[in-house]
Amino acid sequence: MEPRTRAPALGELALGIDIGGTKIALGLVDREGRIVQSEVMATEAAAGFERAVSRIVEASRELLRRAEAAERGVAGAGIGCTGPVYPRRGIIDNPYTLEGWSNCDIVSPLRRALEMEVRLENDADAAALGEWTAGAGKGAGRLVMLTFGTGIGGSVIVNGGIYRGADDGHPELGHLGVDPNGPACYCGIRGCIESIASGPAIHKAAVQAGFGDGREALARAAAGELRAADVVGPVQRSIAVLVWQLLHCFVPRRFVFGGGLMEEHFALLTRDVRKTISAATMVPTAGVELVPARLGNSAGLIGAAALVWQSES
Amino acid sequence: MEPRTRAPALGELALGIDIGGTKIALGLVDREGRIVQSEVMATEAAAGFERAVSRIVEASRELLRRAEAAERGVAGAGIGCTGPVYPRRGIIDNPYTLEGWSNCDIVSPLRRALEMEVRLENDADAAALGEWTAGAGKGAGRLVMLTFGTGIGGSVIVNGGIYRGADDGHPELGHLGVDPNGPACYCGIRGCIESIASGPAIHKAAVQAGFGDGREALARAAAGELRAADVVGPVQRSIAVLVWQLLHCFVPRRFVFGGGLMEEHFALLTRDVRKTISAATMVPTAGVELVPARLGNSAGLIGAAALVWQSES
Repeated sequence: MEPRTRAPALGELALGIDIGGTKIALGLVDREGRIVQSEVMATEAAAGFERAVSRIVEASRELLRRAEAAERGVAGAGIGCTGPVYPRRGIIDNPYTLEGWSNCDIVSPLRRALEMEVRLENDADAAALGEWTAGAGKGAGRLVMLTFGTGIGGSVIVNGGIYRGADDGHPELGHLGVDPNGPACYCGIRGCIESIASGPAIHKAAVQAGFGDGREALARAAAGELRAADVVGPVQRSIAVLVWQLLHCFVPRRFVFGGGLMEEHFALLTRDVRKTISAATMVPTAGVELVPARLGNSAGLIGAAALVWQSES
Repeated sequence: MEPRTRAPALGELALGIDIGGTKIALGLVDREGRIVQSEVMATEAAAGFERAVSRIVEASRELLRRAEAAERGVAGAGIGCTGPVYPRRGIIDNPYTLEGWSNCDIVSPLRRALEMEVRLENDADAAALGEWTAGAGKGAGRLVMLTFGTGIGGSVIVNGGIYRGADDGHPELGHLGVDPNGPACYCGIRGCIESIASGPAIHKAAVQAGFGDGREALARAAAGELRAADVVGPVQRSIAVLVWQLLHCFVPRRFVFGGGLMEEHFALLTRDVRKTISAATMVPTAGVELVPARLGNSAGLIGAAALVWQSES
């Protein structure tokens, strides 16, 4: 028989902290990835790292108090942060997006102040973990998530954990080459997928073709306008090539497509993928799923919390 | 104090079985990857799978007797076999190279006959595990091995184990695209690395350029002949692109280049790699090592044995 009242279960909830360039979201999330309570505040990175830590501690303590009042235990905290971050050392080193945050240890002060285990991951990996826990990636043993926005990022989930390279290195799937004759990219080659299929790259191609912006070209291509289709064609083909490459590298069960561009134009942008990979003879493709992300902005927060349930690797 | 004589330690040696299209090598291998005893026999695949199993059992028992006579314990057996193979199901399904061997369970009969744990892996993965255990991959936490011969194969070692995709799927790194305008390949796209840098591909380009064969073009390019360099140039550039792709996917510490082509022409064929990857800004490259394989044909046998020390994943 179940007792009528029960003690708070250790590990019932996790505290997620999603740190972006403009906003910090904090939330209590259960093991199924449901957000129970959440808060959002401005990042105000330029006001200093110390101040941000104080505000995060304060907001976290308030959430922990609410969990306690509801008699629900919190097993630990996870942070997803716009990278570069160094997960094992607990360091954020992203002065590009977080002004002045060079080589900042976020894990130690939070661990001390909150008296619980705290883990750190970059936001792309946290988002993938979020989709895997509670969104479009649920149930997939091998998953590649690609995020299309200002840049193109990717993350790989394997055996229920985030794939890491040497020294915790994060795969940079947005800089795989797809066209040797494509535009030069800051990554060091010509024709990486980001140089062709990111928001700014589509915008540039659209303006060159006489459209007001990338958004207009995409909308008109979706409506079947041929001149717009000419702008979007190379993007579609490049995304298909990218998926081919990743399929032959990681042999995943599912691809999840996230980010602003995919939220609006998933069907249009992934139009060539199925046809391209169906021609593959060396890896099975019939069971490979191509799906849009489902959690939008919440993926990062849910994934940050899910770090708590990850076994150390 | 150490006792003067000791009982055979369980797990001191492993039995490795390397099954290829023409030869089967069997050996007793220690934990450091040293071959203590070995035997080679013709495969004679066409004489039937059952007969091959009997001969493997017989040769294995002889090796186990020798281990017993030397008072050295054998912890288990590992099989590396030219694929497709299905490791978890213990099935070889390669009628292409092993005539008539369709859907053959090799693990169950060996397990029964030898009364020990038996594991199966494809030969590319076994070779990578071999190089990682005792050859050019030793000590690398993240390793990509590429084998250049009649075809191009690859394998990834992560956290001391073989990377596997969904349903144990094996990455097919030889069919990553490097040039959209390259030759059509049976894999389903144009310009995969195998269509440009495999032995037959180099041979074809060499003959078209007026050389007797690929071997001649490679030797002359190595000697600095310009017309031969024109044949080898696209191969060199394609290998550099391939390494770029794999670097951004897997973020490995080391690349090991094996196979007949690399045994003869490692320096020539990898000439462009360092320059290409040094331009990368998104992943660290200074510590990335590019090395030739060291174990030659023994890699498969040593790796097959090393399967015994692998933890189940």
